[in-house]
Amino acid sequence: MKIAMLQTPVGFDKEQNIERALEWLRQSGENGTDIAVLPEMFTCPYSNKYFPDYAEEGFGKTRQALSQAARELGIYIVGGSIPEREHGKLYNTSFVYDRKGKEIAFCRKSHLFDIDVKGGQRFFESETFSAGDNITVFDTEFGKMGLCICFDMRFPELSRIMALEGAVAVIVPAAFNMTTGPLHWELMFRQRAVDNQLFTVGVSPARDEHGVYVAYGHSIAVDPWGKVVCQMEEGEGMAVCDMDLSMVNEVRSQLPLINARREDIYMVKRVANTKLK
Amino acid sequence: MKIAMLQTPVGFDKEQNIERALEWLRQSGENGTDIAVLPEMFTCPYSNKYFPDYAEEGFGKTRQALSQAARELGIYIVGGSIPEREHGKLYNTSFVYDRKGKEIAFCRKSHLFDIDVKGGQRFFESETFSAGDNITVFDTEFGKMGLCICFDMRFPELSRIMALEGAVAVIVPAAFNMTTGPLHWELMFRQRAVDNQLFTVGVSPARDEHGVYVAYGHSIAVDPWGKVVCQMEEGEGMAVCDMDLSMVNEVRSQLPLINARREDIYMVKRVANTKLK
Repeated sequence: MKIAMLQTPVGFDKEQNIERALEWLRQSGENGTDIAVLPEMFTCPYSNKYFPDYAEEGFGKTRQALSQAARELGIYIVGGSIPEREHGKLYNTSFVYDRKGKEIAFCRKSHLFDIDVKGGQRFFESETFSAGDNITVFDTEFGKMGLCICFDMRFPELSRIMALEGAVAVIVPAAFNMTTGPLHWELMFRQRAVDNQLFTVGVSPARDEHGVYVAYGHSIAVDPWGKVVCQMEEGEGMAVCDMDLSMVNEVRSQLPLINARREDIYMVKRVANTKLK
Repeated sequence: MKIAMLQTPVGFDKEQNIERALEWLRQSGENGTDIAVLPEMFTCPYSNKYFPDYAEEGFGKTRQALSQAARELGIYIVGGSIPEREHGKLYNTSFVYDRKGKEIAFCRKSHLFDIDVKGGQRFFESETFSAGDNITVFDTEFGKMGLCICFDMRFPELSRIMALEGAVAVIVPAAFNMTTGPLHWELMFRQRAVDNQLFTVGVSPARDEHGVYVAYGHSIAVDPWGKVVCQMEEGEGMAVCDMDLSMVNEVRSQLPLINARREDIYMVKRVANTKLK
């Protein structure tokens, strides 16, 4: 399976952000990509000030463009995330398209990014967004894929549940910053992969030192042993990673973690009212 | 709080193994240690062949020696682990002593180390040991401490439950090997600390290149940001680490992970029949 990480730049012009994403999607299509992944908030500067104006309601411009690109290129697209409006509320939402352009899954960020590090990053996403309640796993011809958004990945319960439901990879549109990125980005993607014996993929916007939010970049793919398969630097670009999904079962048989769990002494599970979407 | 990691050597002579541990305990006592931690299987070569002969039943020689040392030195001792026999079954068990020598907690390894890595490590602990069913959290004047043994730490549910029950540190007598050590040791202790915003401590036997089991060494202490506070090399020795436990609340307020969990969409918990021992 070939997965393309599209580390796109995000500026103030929404049309241009979408157009740039489409250009990279076309490039990934020409490179034999099976699944292309865009970054968190790839259409909108990452700031509470801009989310409302850039938001879309219903099957709007961005979703239409991604669906059409998926169909034309014959690839899966994990559409990063966009500000989505429904019933007057805003969500940070990722939409997924199959090779025919059909929207097969979505995930609304369920853990909002509220952080206030002394001498570091301050941001309160909850000032604008409402939290979703999705734990998203979707089907592909390669197997099930988990999907969550950035800060969600901080919570080990999510990827654990995804693995138990059969995910062979967890895909994460994300935008760590210059405080949390150097500290925790690679560490987190590596350990989630090791714990759950699956691939993890994190895709960030390109870094803009002068932007309203300085993203860490470093889009990353990690294998079930915890080894980094691909890691980008901070600039705009694309990395196409070959993933040998047979590794998942191989690693699980050599080092039986998933099977050795003690469900008689602890449990982790979805709460009943959050069914698979 | 000062925690001493005692990276002791383990040979074939049980008396000598205990005596060496006691010497290091005395040294740690002279260094103002509050809690001293010994390695997994510090009395016995790490091999199914030896566990039965080195095992102790009831309050045997090793437990007596550790209790007495704790009382005489006025420190807490997390007594690594030993092969423990009860009702004809063997367990890989850690016992904990307070400053008065009272045995205040124990943990029987609940995930047995069965691994068969191609071209790497092969070991089936379950050929000899029975699995315990403890999730252990014990009280000290510094706060609650979680305790588990080596392979147990691979399972994120355990340290998550310990954190939710109030642990400010998770202490892990352990013996990773030359396959899993370089791959996963530091990564695991760092990410568990980050996820649960507490300190983690892993204490290994010293490496013996000619031993029946070649331990990785590298005893490690990590702070709630995921930064390595102390890490030893592979040889015999002691490291005394100063831990500023006020960091736990400070980190949790700056980066609210523990509080931002979504208990309405997932849960992780003990199963009812495994109460705190």
